[in-house]
Amino acid sequence: MNQPNHGGNLAWAAEIAGCPASSLLDFSASINPLGPPSSVINALQAAFVQLRNYPDPNYFSLRSHLSDLHHIPGDWILPGNGSAELLTWAGRELAQHNETILLTPAFGDYYRALTAFSAKIKAIPFDIFSQTLLPEITPAADYSQTGLLLNNPHNPTGRLFRKSEILPLLDQFALVVIDEAFMDFLPPEQSQSLISLVEKYPNLIILRSLTKFYSLPGLRLGYAIGHPDYLQRWQAWRDPWPVNILAEAAAIAGIEDQAFQQQTWDWLKSARPNLEKNLASIAGLFPLPASVNFILVKTDFASSHLQKQLLMNHHLLIRDCLSFAKLGDRFFRVAVRTEADHQKLLQGLTEFIKAQT
Amino acid sequence: MNQPNHGGNLAWAAEIAGCPASSLLDFSASINPLGPPSSVINALQAAFVQLRNYPDPNYFSLRSHLSDLHHIPGDWILPGNGSAELLTWAGRELAQHNETILLTPAFGDYYRALTAFSAKIKAIPFDIFSQTLLPEITPAADYSQTGLLLNNPHNPTGRLFRKSEILPLLDQFALVVIDEAFMDFLPPEQSQSLISLVEKYPNLIILRSLTKFYSLPGLRLGYAIGHPDYLQRWQAWRDPWPVNILAEAAAIAGIEDQAFQQQTWDWLKSARPNLEKNLASIAGLFPLPASVNFILVKTDFASSHLQKQLLMNHHLLIRDCLSFAKLGDRFFRVAVRTEADHQKLLQGLTEFIKAQT
Repeated sequence: MNQPNHGGNLAWAAEIAGCPASSLLDFSASINPLGPPSSVINALQAAFVQLRNYPDPNYFSLRSHLSDLHHIPGDWILPGNGSAELLTWAGRELAQHNETILLTPAFGDYYRALTAFSAKIKAIPFDIFSQTLLPEITPAADYSQTGLLLNNPHNPTGRLFRKSEILPLLDQFALVVIDEAFMDFLPPEQSQSLISLVEKYPNLIILRSLTKFYSLPGLRLGYAIGHPDYLQRWQAWRDPWPVNILAEAAAIAGIEDQAFQQQTWDWLKSARPNLEKNLASIAGLFPLPASVNFILVKTDFASSHLQKQLLMNHHLLIRDCLSFAKLGDRFFRVAVRTEADHQKLLQGLTEFIKAQT
Repeated sequence: MNQPNHGGNLAWAAEIAGCPASSLLDFSASINPLGPPSSVINALQAAFVQLRNYPDPNYFSLRSHLSDLHHIPGDWILPGNGSAELLTWAGRELAQHNETILLTPAFGDYYRALTAFSAKIKAIPFDIFSQTLLPEITPAADYSQTGLLLNNPHNPTGRLFRKSEILPLLDQFALVVIDEAFMDFLPPEQSQSLISLVEKYPNLIILRSLTKFYSLPGLRLGYAIGHPDYLQRWQAWRDPWPVNILAEAAAIAGIEDQAFQQQTWDWLKSARPNLEKNLASIAGLFPLPASVNFILVKTDFASSHLQKQLLMNHHLLIRDCLSFAKLGDRFFRVAVRTEADHQKLLQGLTEFIKAQT
C-alpha cells in the first residue's frame, strides 16, 4: 500500500503496526473524541426504515435546520457528500478564473480539486511561525480575475485568521472560497466564520464539515454556503442525491444537540492548551500555537521515522506532513483527544526521544 | 415544490396526497420490495462503531468482493456514491469525444451528466414497441469519434438488449458506457451483462447499482467496471471518500447473501408476468413487454391526471413519464412489488378508469 496523503488511513497504518485497525489510537485524523453523540446514534437507528427511499433531492429538512443555525436563507445552502465533494465543485468554479491563489502549506485535496479542472494554481508560501496578518498576499496586486482558496482555521498549522484579516480580500478577489471545516470547534463567541458576510459578498463561498465535530467521517457530510447562482450550478453538475439519508438524519440530530456542542467546547478549552504545554516540554518538539482540535509540531528529527516507531511500538498513529508542500519531514500533526490518550502519546514520544539520544 | 424528474420523490408526492410520506405506497421507484435483507441491516448495525473513521480511500474490501463476484481484477472496479455519481464522471469522459449518442427515451440524469461537461448529445429515438435489434444506430455510420451511453435493461421501457446486439457496437464506437443499473434483477443464466467483455474491450465501461436490488437507495452505492486508465482518472477528478462506510459494509453483506438473491429472482419470476397480465386486462392500459422489476404502460388518457388521482384517492405513487423525452403524458411506469401491493394498484387503476367512462 502507498503512503496515504491524508490522515485517518487506518488500513495502511494497521499494516505497519501489525495490529488490527481497531487497535490503533488515531491521532492522525482530527476527529472529536467525544462523539458521535448518542442523539446522533439514535437518529441513525430511527432513520434505518427510510433506507429504502431515495433521499429528498432538495434536502429540505436539513437545509431548514442549517438555515436556522446560520440565519441564512435555505437556497444559499447546499449539502454535500462531505465537504470534499463540495470542494470538487468549488475547484471547478475557481478554475473558471485566470488563476487561484493557495497559501501553502495547503491541504493536499485542494490541489486535487483544482487540478481536476485544470485550474492554474499560484502557491504563496506563508510564514507559519508568524501570527501577523496575511502579508504574503500583496494588497497592491490586481486580483480581479483571480480566485483564492483559503482554509480557516488553517490546516495543518492551526492558525486562525481573523475575520478582519480576510475582509479586505473579499473586495480584491474575483472569488474567495473559505474552507471552514474546523471552525465549529470554536465556541460561537470566538468564531471567525465569514458566513454572516455571504449575503453581502456574492463572490464568497464557505465550505463547512459536520463530520469532524460530530465524529462521523465515515458517514460523509458537509455543506456549502454561497450565492444561489453558484449552488444551483453545482447542483446541475453533480448527481441529484449526493447526501445519503442517514447522513441527513445524523446532521439534523447533531445540529439540535446543544449539550454535546457545549461539552465539546468545554473539553477543548482545557485539553488543547494542556497537550500543547506537554508537547512543548519534550526536548526536540516545538508545537505551534493552535486554535482548534489539532496541533502542528516541529521536530528536530525525521517525523516519518517517528511515525513508524510510534505505530510499531505503541500502535499510535500521528500525521506525518510529507504530503504538505513546504513542510516535509520535520513536522507532524496530532489531534487533540482525551487526557488518557494524551498520556499514551506523550509516553510514546518521550520513549522515542530517549532512544534517539 | 416542482414536479420531480425522477421516481421516489416522496416529499413532493406526500404534499399532493395530503398524507405523510411514510403512508405512500411507492410504485414510482423501482426498488426491490423484499429488501433490505436482514443480513444487510445486521452489517449496518455492526459498522456503526466505524463511523468515527474515514472510509478506506482504496475501498479494498469492497473491491475484493466485487472482484470475486465478477471475476474481474480489483483495479478494474471503482465504487461510487450511487451509480449516479459515477455517471457524472462517465459524462465527463464521454464529453471528450465529438458527440454522444443517446437512445431516447432516456433516463433524465443522462442529459444532466452529459450537459454538465458540455457533451454534444445526439438523441436517436428508438421504436419502443419493436423487439428487434438496434436498427436506429446505422451500422454504416462512422462512430470512431463518437460515444454511446446505453441503458440495459432499458429504463423506462423495460427492453433488454441481448449481448449479441451490443457486441458489434463495441467495434464501432470510441467509447461505450452501459448503465446496467437493473441487470442484477435477472438471474445469472438470463443476464445480458457485458462485464465479462470489459477486459477485452478497453472502450467499454459498465455502471452498476447495488441499491435497487438490495433496497438501499437512501444509502447510495454503485460501481463502475472498466479499464483502470479510466477509473484512475475518475478517482483523480473526484474526492477521496465518495462511498460512506455503512454503504461499503451493506454492499459486502448483500453480495454475500445468496439466499436473498435467489429469493428475489424467485419472486420476480412470477410477480412480473402476473402484474403485466393484470394490467393488460384493464381497458385503456397497454403494458409493454418487461424484463426486470418495472413495467412501462401506455395509456388512452393523461397519465399525469391518473397519477394525481391515485395519490389523492389511494395514496399510491406511480411514475409519470413527462421527464422522458419522446414519451410524454400517455405513459406511466410502475415497479413490480408484492401481490398485496399489486391488488391495491389494480383496484386504484380500475376505479380511475370507471370514473372516466
